[in-house]
Amino acid sequence: MKEILFNLDKTLPTGLQLQLKEQLVSAILSRALQPGERMPSSRKLANHLVVSRNTVTLVYQSLVDSGYLEPRARSGFVVCPDAPVVPPVDGLNYKDTIEGEKIDLAARIVSSKLILHPMNKPLNWREFRYSFIFGQADFKLFSHSDWRDCARQALGARDFGSLAGDFGHNDDPLLVNYIIRHSLPQRGIIMEPPNVLVTMGAQNALYLIADLLIKRSTRIVVEEPCYPDLLDIVKKYTTHVETIKVDDSGLVLDEKVLARCDLLFVTPSHQCPTTVTMPTERRKALLELAQKHDFLVIEDDYEFEMNFLAAASPALKSLDSRGRVLYIGSFSKSLFPGLRLGYLVASRQFIERTRELRHLMFRHPPGHAQRTAAYFMALGFYDSQILRLKRVFATRRQTMQMALDEFGLSNRTAALFGGTSFWIEGPPWLDADLLATELTKQSVLIEPGGPFFADRNKKSNFFRIAYSSIERSRIREGVEIIRKTIDDLAP
Amino acid sequence: MKEILFNLDKTLPTGLQLQLKEQLVSAILSRALQPGERMPSSRKLANHLVVSRNTVTLVYQSLVDSGYLEPRARSGFVVCPDAPVVPPVDGLNYKDTIEGEKIDLAARIVSSKLILHPMNKPLNWREFRYSFIFGQADFKLFSHSDWRDCARQALGARDFGSLAGDFGHNDDPLLVNYIIRHSLPQRGIIMEPPNVLVTMGAQNALYLIADLLIKRSTRIVVEEPCYPDLLDIVKKYTTHVETIKVDDSGLVLDEKVLARCDLLFVTPSHQCPTTVTMPTERRKALLELAQKHDFLVIEDDYEFEMNFLAAASPALKSLDSRGRVLYIGSFSKSLFPGLRLGYLVASRQFIERTRELRHLMFRHPPGHAQRTAAYFMALGFYDSQILRLKRVFATRRQTMQMALDEFGLSNRTAALFGGTSFWIEGPPWLDADLLATELTKQSVLIEPGGPFFADRNKKSNFFRIAYSSIERSRIREGVEIIRKTIDDLAP
Repeated sequence: MKEILFNLDKTLPTGLQLQLKEQLVSAILSRALQPGERMPSSRKLANHLVVSRNTVTLVYQSLVDSGYLEPRARSGFVVCPDAPVVPPVDGLNYKDTIEGEKIDLAARIVSSKLILHPMNKPLNWREFRYSFIFGQADFKLFSHSDWRDCARQALGARDFGSLAGDFGHNDDPLLVNYIIRHSLPQRGIIMEPPNVLVTMGAQNALYLIADLLIKRSTRIVVEEPCYPDLLDIVKKYTTHVETIKVDDSGLVLDEKVLARCDLLFVTPSHQCPTTVTMPTERRKALLELAQKHDFLVIEDDYEFEMNFLAAASPALKSLDSRGRVLYIGSFSKSLFPGLRLGYLVASRQFIERTRELRHLMFRHPPGHAQRTAAYFMALGFYDSQILRLKRVFATRRQTMQMALDEFGLSNRTAALFGGTSFWIEGPPWLDADLLATELTKQSVLIEPGGPFFADRNKKSNFFRIAYSSIERSRIREGVEIIRKTIDDLAP
Repeated sequence: MKEILFNLDKTLPTGLQLQLKEQLVSAILSRALQPGERMPSSRKLANHLVVSRNTVTLVYQSLVDSGYLEPRARSGFVVCPDAPVVPPVDGLNYKDTIEGEKIDLAARIVSSKLILHPMNKPLNWREFRYSFIFGQADFKLFSHSDWRDCARQALGARDFGSLAGDFGHNDDPLLVNYIIRHSLPQRGIIMEPPNVLVTMGAQNALYLIADLLIKRSTRIVVEEPCYPDLLDIVKKYTTHVETIKVDDSGLVLDEKVLARCDLLFVTPSHQCPTTVTMPTERRKALLELAQKHDFLVIEDDYEFEMNFLAAASPALKSLDSRGRVLYIGSFSKSLFPGLRLGYLVASRQFIERTRELRHLMFRHPPGHAQRTAAYFMALGFYDSQILRLKRVFATRRQTMQMALDEFGLSNRTAALFGGTSFWIEGPPWLDADLLATELTKQSVLIEPGGPFFADRNKKSNFFRIAYSSIERSRIREGVEIIRKTIDDLAP
């Protein structure tokens, strides 16, 4: 036996058992280890690999269970005579795959759709000492073992079959039930299950709405500043995109612009990115304008649970007597973004069509993710989680506010209820892109404001700093570095 | 304490502990149970609910862990003074939500996109005695406990944080690595990670391609018969859709039609739905025509692992020296459809753009699902699974073939390698929709052929019967009922 085949790397995050098992399986599949071939004794292989004998024994045993090895009395293990093999491919000529002049596939992309500028957020944000990144979760605050228990239940024999099947147009009724009974009533919205579609995060809800409702002549209005991906989504369908400024009470009701609007995208409860809240009077006035000028309103109610400064105000949708508001909720901020679960609320007939489009696009969000989230919520872990986040974020926010005051950074956030970030206006001459680059060198991560504005090429002196993923003890130091770096960049 | 609040239903699939816990949490959140309120003793509540005392004790203990209850020395448990509560909503007036005349939201959908006819497959297929349904998995054949072990690992402390984050444009490198090193080489395809995009099933790959490559003037060719959702996807973007017939060697190379084609969608290895395989010579001729007439080929290589009659032939993509073939693979049939994982293989530049579009649409497939599948594969469970499926399907197929012969049903499938279904041509006068309806009454589920043809309104005498979800012992009986029902419908 060729022990030399195997080589474990103790510095890898992957466990040694897992590494060994993967290498053995790979060797059997490729027939580097032949069926019937005798495996080295666990003692011998353990010595060779410098691991405990138990590690080898456990791996051998698990390979017996999955049909790769067979035990032999008094002589250890052999490769199973009918172990799986990577099947041979007839008449294969690898050289074919590299010959010939390649065509330029990317050049065939329909040019009108070439307007994508998705933000490339750094994925190594955990490596930054001062990570003021927005929208990633702090796993020290997440009740991970409870989530794992819920996942185990969703993956259990009782649920597995139904969750693993093709749902067709449907969603997990447990999850929809929770949204109907708990999430929406908290926002003042009373709905029935046919009014709700589960989506792959709020972004997917925005995309589905855009695809169904926007044609080339459709006139869109968005907030300025606004969520950058939203701009890319709507610009994929129409060039008629106008912006209206946001003040301390959210979107300014500029009737001249709204009068020629078909679809308005708005974040009334925590404006993105400024986190300001629109007061009830302005909400009512907005809905009256929608009725008067016959436009629809898409309400992205992101972070609605993060109301630790005051009780939440009801959603715009709760005031919507005409069915003009399409409501979007998300679990990305309160659970975790990699889960990709959100929802859309609208009329039954509209949801039915959205369901059909979702089916064509990807069918449905995975069943196990839906059920795991449903259990997590139904068992009360979700509410505990929100409570914990709000407590921690409240103290972090206070610390950050004090640091901003101390170092004279101008907070343009007028959040009444909470949120997870501040929107900072730097000196007029500041180039926030340059600031972000300089800060990266000092292990500080901020989000420059440029992409939040319709004119992306314009230099922006705004930036966003979030406290959702940074420990309280590092906040003051991080803000101080930002201040000093701004000063260093002064002309 | 109001024990009367709680009522467990032993007939429900949900466990008693779970039911009790959910009801207690709900009562605490809504303050039906007040903070500080004393809970009944476990003995008393157990008696009331007619469950074991241990059930109640375990639920109480878990509610202590999650901050809903507090133990009191010698007096059992009380509701935690700071237990989570469903927050009140200021100024909420529920009546607002139902007043006023509603607008017709669905009528605002852009009309050119109103051509969706997704198939509504019955979700209660498990209740049919003879379920010849296609595309659902037989969980008796799935190594469910191994999958759960892999999920536990993916949800473990080591992986959780990175998998739960926002991946941005990226995919799980472990999964991509497996696809590159194992799945694609089995199909004769050698690629690098930047050539691969993980998608939400094969359907999502088809949708992304269509969205990027089809404009109103783009001329599409599809097989007839073909996958019904594919027709809906391409018709969403263009009206120039032509079909070419399939014979026993797959797509007929009708050069007149192909000469005016921009994009050809084809299933060469197991044609959908007939399961016929295109011979190598015809594949080469097809690629020559693609070069001559400058069209692109989208290869949907569904069910490529189900080759139990003979060794697989390499994918069309493996012969593609010009980069004209976009290759789509899926794990829906070999793992389970509710997982929603597939992949797209094409040039780096094209994949990069697809990645951006995917980001706008829903960001990325959930991290935990990607990693769980990656572990399941890397640890060899996947290959064992495929081996098991192939053995079982081979015997089921043989049984079904014998039954079809015995009852004189005309099998139009010319599968060389395997698959999971037969494509049956009934007598010319047969209306397969009517047949399916009649069979439903006898607990037999088949798929009528109509939706597989471009002209959906035309009566079809074809139907598909799969053996992927039916026990071998029921196949002959089911086929006999189909035969008798056809005879009963004879004019």
